[in-house]
Amino acid sequence: MKPIHVGLLGLGTVGGGTVNVLSRNAAEIARRAGREIRITHAAARAYAPELEPLLQGVEICDDAFAVVNNPEVEIIVELIGGYTPALELVMQAIANGKHVVTANKALIAMHGNEIFQAAQGRGVMVAFEAAVAGGIPIIKALREGLAANQIEWVAGIINGTGNFILTEMLDKGRDFAEVLSEAQALGYAEANPTFDVEGIDAAHKLTILGSLAFGIPLQFDKTYVEGITRITRQDVAYAEQLGYRIKHLGIARKEANGIELRVHPTLIPRKRLIANVNGVMNAVLVKGDAVGPTLYYGAGAGSEPTASAVVADLVDVTRTLTTDPNNRVPHLAFQPSHLSNLRIMPMEEVQTACYLRVHALDEPGVMAEIAGILGRHGISIEAIQQKEPAEGEESLPLVMLTHRVEERCMNQAIAEIEALECVSGAVMRIRLEPLSG
Amino acid sequence: MKPIHVGLLGLGTVGGGTVNVLSRNAAEIARRAGREIRITHAAARAYAPELEPLLQGVEICDDAFAVVNNPEVEIIVELIGGYTPALELVMQAIANGKHVVTANKALIAMHGNEIFQAAQGRGVMVAFEAAVAGGIPIIKALREGLAANQIEWVAGIINGTGNFILTEMLDKGRDFAEVLSEAQALGYAEANPTFDVEGIDAAHKLTILGSLAFGIPLQFDKTYVEGITRITRQDVAYAEQLGYRIKHLGIARKEANGIELRVHPTLIPRKRLIANVNGVMNAVLVKGDAVGPTLYYGAGAGSEPTASAVVADLVDVTRTLTTDPNNRVPHLAFQPSHLSNLRIMPMEEVQTACYLRVHALDEPGVMAEIAGILGRHGISIEAIQQKEPAEGEESLPLVMLTHRVEERCMNQAIAEIEALECVSGAVMRIRLEPLSG
Repeated sequence: MKPIHVGLLGLGTVGGGTVNVLSRNAAEIARRAGREIRITHAAARAYAPELEPLLQGVEICDDAFAVVNNPEVEIIVELIGGYTPALELVMQAIANGKHVVTANKALIAMHGNEIFQAAQGRGVMVAFEAAVAGGIPIIKALREGLAANQIEWVAGIINGTGNFILTEMLDKGRDFAEVLSEAQALGYAEANPTFDVEGIDAAHKLTILGSLAFGIPLQFDKTYVEGITRITRQDVAYAEQLGYRIKHLGIARKEANGIELRVHPTLIPRKRLIANVNGVMNAVLVKGDAVGPTLYYGAGAGSEPTASAVVADLVDVTRTLTTDPNNRVPHLAFQPSHLSNLRIMPMEEVQTACYLRVHALDEPGVMAEIAGILGRHGISIEAIQQKEPAEGEESLPLVMLTHRVEERCMNQAIAEIEALECVSGAVMRIRLEPLSG
Repeated sequence: MKPIHVGLLGLGTVGGGTVNVLSRNAAEIARRAGREIRITHAAARAYAPELEPLLQGVEICDDAFAVVNNPEVEIIVELIGGYTPALELVMQAIANGKHVVTANKALIAMHGNEIFQAAQGRGVMVAFEAAVAGGIPIIKALREGLAANQIEWVAGIINGTGNFILTEMLDKGRDFAEVLSEAQALGYAEANPTFDVEGIDAAHKLTILGSLAFGIPLQFDKTYVEGITRITRQDVAYAEQLGYRIKHLGIARKEANGIELRVHPTLIPRKRLIANVNGVMNAVLVKGDAVGPTLYYGAGAGSEPTASAVVADLVDVTRTLTTDPNNRVPHLAFQPSHLSNLRIMPMEEVQTACYLRVHALDEPGVMAEIAGILGRHGISIEAIQQKEPAEGEESLPLVMLTHRVEERCMNQAIAEIEALECVSGAVMRIRLEPLSG
């Protein structure tokens, strides 16, 4: 069979990895796919000189639209990132009847609904395994491997930078800012780390996972996002003393009154497998009603791990070229005519147990006041510990674990505690999830 | 679209689970697959009374061949197990042009080559996700999700009974025989536990994983198998003291001079994620050249976890019904015309580090004799510890970790050590794998 012709947009980190993997493993990939997958065209302003020998015979230009409009190209691989011109390029490729493979999580989370609708109308596939958790085939697991299940919840460590920072804070007993600087020096964190440490990148990925799990349209704007910047090394140590570990989780859960979509730091029992996923590694824990908990672990970013997912998508698309478009795996796991309009729950309705850290003066009656406020809001305390004050601090840290409570009640209780004269500074609240597995 | 008609052979544990999952999640599954998947015929001698209401409208008989020969049935689900009549039923179904879904690891490991050849000739699919690691979609990960990679090695905890026993031996400090009896009482181990504890079940699954990873025909007869029956609670404790955990692993690895296929107890560093997979849970660690290490974790057996994989296969087959047979995912991951004849390495050629436990009299010169034998066979010692003698025992247990050595040399060294007058009983040798991830 003749080779399939791929047009590659972008020759940066992931683009370079894709060129490398397709070249090095060409024979292996062709033995699997049944035909050669060949990059025939590429668009890039510049690329690393070491790619030069691998790009022999590839027609390279700096106009991505020229590649998208080239009738010789059958599959477009979009590795430019961002919204513009990525969206226009993808829509033009679809309009031209080309299949698309992309690693662009932001694009899919924000514009996936219109992209998939256009692809559906034109009978082409848009594959995006590389958009979530890099090389881990989690999208395939959710869309195909677990197709028998009603998914109950998904909880994932889906940002490597954040997980590296939290792991270092625990291992070295160091503060967030210090570890962040180190991560930037090592290249694990961007110069502008906002997308990672504020949870926006994780929220893009969670939006996608939530849609695949529950058959709902992509709704990034309704995803709750909280970063890890306020976590202190004391919180990390206190959690450990209580038998928990703090991870930055993306959680999608189906409840009786809607779907929860939330990204925030989370205490999870230390004995859970996912609590032991360290450094830049990613993992996604999925609970299905038939299969129970399953976990998928691997590198969530990086040149070749991400390329692994891009190329797997190329193999998939190659295999489905001749498939009746109505019998392909649906973009969002469920047939587009059968997506559900389940509401996304506002955060105030979400129920979780909580870890609270309160700084209070060492006076009689303080504990009673705080406990009283919690009690009046129907919040039961599971554990309470008084910690040593930090050097030069007058107030004592009180650490509490509460039972499950609606976010709305906890918000009110926290506001009242913060208003107490004997309490200094803000209350630190970290949600707690028992998970399973 | 009209429902797809499924003929179910066997209504035991997994068959019952399949009926339950297909019934309970019918709407969800149809929303994914695009059409209803309906059991129309079933063959079973008997079934649990609670299945009765779910089998309304299903034509039930006790002649499995009648179901296989029924022209109304489009997919046969073989859940009888064993070789006879499972093989004849599957071959007849293929001859009749029906797709087959099976959970039968022994059948695939022993007869997969002829089954897949027949299926290929007839243009039908034989799906077997449930045959390895129950509900974990590991076959899909290897065949599709990691298709970009040259797989370097696969290491899996793929027998839940064995993992339960080893976990209990560690947690409770108890002996193999005692834990086995308990596992039998709990229903985690069969009355005849040979298949599980001697590693035969794991070897069936490893044979399949090895073929998928490396594109080689199924060769169960060349798979090395060693059980866990000789592991003592002392070994488990000593390993722990050295920073390792003992797991019963199936390992498939590509080396310069062939493929290793081996099932045996293995020391692995305690900090590896897979070392923390406990109880009846399964996990498979896969190292790809592009993606690095990835891990897949979940329930490896049980009614509904296994049914989860069976039904996922039904959804896959439903989606590929209209696909050109040459563009489907190949049974063994690689196109049948491109399977490789790489040799399977005899165990004597395999190189591993080792844990050795030797019982020796507390006499001067003993250590020098043992160390001398190891040295003459080119075996370097990484660590050595003298343990307390067991109550009533005269000889002292010596525990050693060696560097990597060819199995052949280690066998000779062990024979010489066992022949020493000052050494009593057999030397316990447990192979050690550093793994990664």
